[in-house]
Amino acid sequence: MLNFSYYLPTHFVFGRGAEEKAGEMTRQAGGTRVLIHYGGGSALRSGLIGKVEDSLKRAGVYFTALGGAQPNPLASKVYEGIRLIRAEKIDFILAVGGGSAMDSAKAMALGAVYEGNFWDFFCGRATPQAHLPVGAVLTIAASGSESSNSAVITRDETLEKRGLNCELNRPVFALMNPEWTCSLPPYQTACGATDIMAHVLERYFTNETGVDLTDRLCEAVLSAVIDAAPRALRQPGDYDARAQLMWAGTIAHNETVGVGRQGDWASHKIEHELSAKYGVAHGAGLAVVLPAWMRYHLAHDPARFAQLAVRVWGCEADFRAPEVTGLAGIERFEAFLRSIGMPGSLKELGGKSEDIPALAASTRKEADGGVGNYTHLFPQDIEAILRIADK
Amino acid sequence: MLNFSYYLPTHFVFGRGAEEKAGEMTRQAGGTRVLIHYGGGSALRSGLIGKVEDSLKRAGVYFTALGGAQPNPLASKVYEGIRLIRAEKIDFILAVGGGSAMDSAKAMALGAVYEGNFWDFFCGRATPQAHLPVGAVLTIAASGSESSNSAVITRDETLEKRGLNCELNRPVFALMNPEWTCSLPPYQTACGATDIMAHVLERYFTNETGVDLTDRLCEAVLSAVIDAAPRALRQPGDYDARAQLMWAGTIAHNETVGVGRQGDWASHKIEHELSAKYGVAHGAGLAVVLPAWMRYHLAHDPARFAQLAVRVWGCEADFRAPEVTGLAGIERFEAFLRSIGMPGSLKELGGKSEDIPALAASTRKEADGGVGNYTHLFPQDIEAILRIADK
Repeated sequence: MLNFSYYLPTHFVFGRGAEEKAGEMTRQAGGTRVLIHYGGGSALRSGLIGKVEDSLKRAGVYFTALGGAQPNPLASKVYEGIRLIRAEKIDFILAVGGGSAMDSAKAMALGAVYEGNFWDFFCGRATPQAHLPVGAVLTIAASGSESSNSAVITRDETLEKRGLNCELNRPVFALMNPEWTCSLPPYQTACGATDIMAHVLERYFTNETGVDLTDRLCEAVLSAVIDAAPRALRQPGDYDARAQLMWAGTIAHNETVGVGRQGDWASHKIEHELSAKYGVAHGAGLAVVLPAWMRYHLAHDPARFAQLAVRVWGCEADFRAPEVTGLAGIERFEAFLRSIGMPGSLKELGGKSEDIPALAASTRKEADGGVGNYTHLFPQDIEAILRIADK
Repeated sequence: MLNFSYYLPTHFVFGRGAEEKAGEMTRQAGGTRVLIHYGGGSALRSGLIGKVEDSLKRAGVYFTALGGAQPNPLASKVYEGIRLIRAEKIDFILAVGGGSAMDSAKAMALGAVYEGNFWDFFCGRATPQAHLPVGAVLTIAASGSESSNSAVITRDETLEKRGLNCELNRPVFALMNPEWTCSLPPYQTACGATDIMAHVLERYFTNETGVDLTDRLCEAVLSAVIDAAPRALRQPGDYDARAQLMWAGTIAHNETVGVGRQGDWASHKIEHELSAKYGVAHGAGLAVVLPAWMRYHLAHDPARFAQLAVRVWGCEADFRAPEVTGLAGIERFEAFLRSIGMPGSLKELGGKSEDIPALAASTRKEADGGVGNYTHLFPQDIEAILRIADK
């Protein structure tokens, strides 16, 4: 088990009516002039933006709004937000939506108080030193961005998709009412569930030993998602299923299940190339990459794959052949993803075999040219993984 | 699932050498004049106090020390601390030890800035409005006090043992090096493991539905403790086993596994009477009360007991008779507690049958005279539970 530091300053208000706390929580956090940043029209049409605005009004807080956060949020929107923040002397950003709105808001919060180009932080040219505080009103169970230290932005010109992890990225509060997720289309619900599972699995696949407790916490979250996602798809208004997914999304990505171990994250990096190139949803890309990544790694650590298969997927253990048990677990994962409507191959995602070498080459590398921690993947490994996905 | 608010501001530094951060973390938290509060001589003899003092010196922080925190910490020590804090103009309390040192420190922190008697807070006559910040250097995996909102103090004259839950009680930081728990005697290690399991089980037994995720998180922590405790007893220096127990103790009692549900807490209240009357360790008292409480409640909700038996204790499910499965789980719990050296009856605890009516009568009641939330126990119920324990 690795030494760790754990500090989660986000204040969560969870349950029916949580959005009505927006004004009070913003004031508590010192916000007086607020930029509400949201995505498409659904947050407007559903009435959520109206409720948030009413709450801010009741609290006597000035606000202005900027919509248009897109899936795989773009740098151009961040620049637009930064200009508005400066013009309006904004001191607090309230993201209303999912990962896109929150990640954009985080990037704006860093960029607005920085003299240079905010992209410096995302390409490693500078380290953030200050920010505006960000709050979140969540409408999608998926990214965990409501309390994670990460943000992912795509550069318009080059379609480079880059993540930034830093403690300043954690929102000061997150208002989480599962009811707002009940109107999500099935495909987005399933993409979100996949993203949540991926956040857990990226942490689960570690070479660290002596991490039994966090293994079991990971397994608990996976099991809960496997139970809740089909319920939410069958009955979109199932509050309890939506609530399990929503809280699972949060704890999957704020280190509750990840302390004391080094995660892998190669699948995320490979997927970023797919969603940047083909414009696919992050969860859908992960549904294709992650099982292929798992098949490629089964031989690296059959015991861990067998543990996952038995404890999470209910597979019978073959005690003489953990790799057989492990493979059965991967197959159940693939069957589960298909059952909730996720794509099962690069082709179903709209990808092309001939793009594979370029995708492998463009996947963001560490300094030594490798990707991931469970094993260190080089372009030929990434190609092999994408070939497995290209069935 | 109930609406909830979750805010955990404690900053954890976990792993080898964590105690060396004492000075830096205290300064970060604004401490300039520190009271180190610790228990018996073991923290001195082990060299831990010396290391903490060195760290404070390096950070240029003034400190004085007060030892003598006892198991089931007494109000008299709290008064002594408050006098010292005022005389020395202390602005930060650093508890070094386990639940006793931390709970005493929390009570001092509230009492030092209150004009009245700190006991007012513990008997419900006043609500805390202010405090001095408290930090913790942990030496026992048990109470979870290092990030919980609770403190329990016993009044010397009457042996009343009373708990206070309030958000001001959460330490600002917790330094957690599992190595300091390796020298704990086996009995204390086992008491700690029992206390951790009890904190989870008090939350597990709820009538709330739609709480699958937290059910599974509870089960994960229980399973990890069931695995780690015997390892730590067999091989006291097993770092990884100690680390699992230490982090399990923390998340068992800071609502990581308890959000969105109402816990029971009757067993804790009944046990408080036992430890106040017989001076037994809290964990040992729980080992006697909790299984008896479970036997008394099996018929109330056989499905939940069966779920626990199957998922945590590996019992085979009798699908036609969940109460049979549930009972098998309780029996495995009892066998486990015995295997780690815990007492199995009131007698083994030093208790007497003839004390039972008085113990039942003195258990701290809610306003309506009942105790606990899973069911609401009246004195005749508590008597019945203690008779089950008196075998």
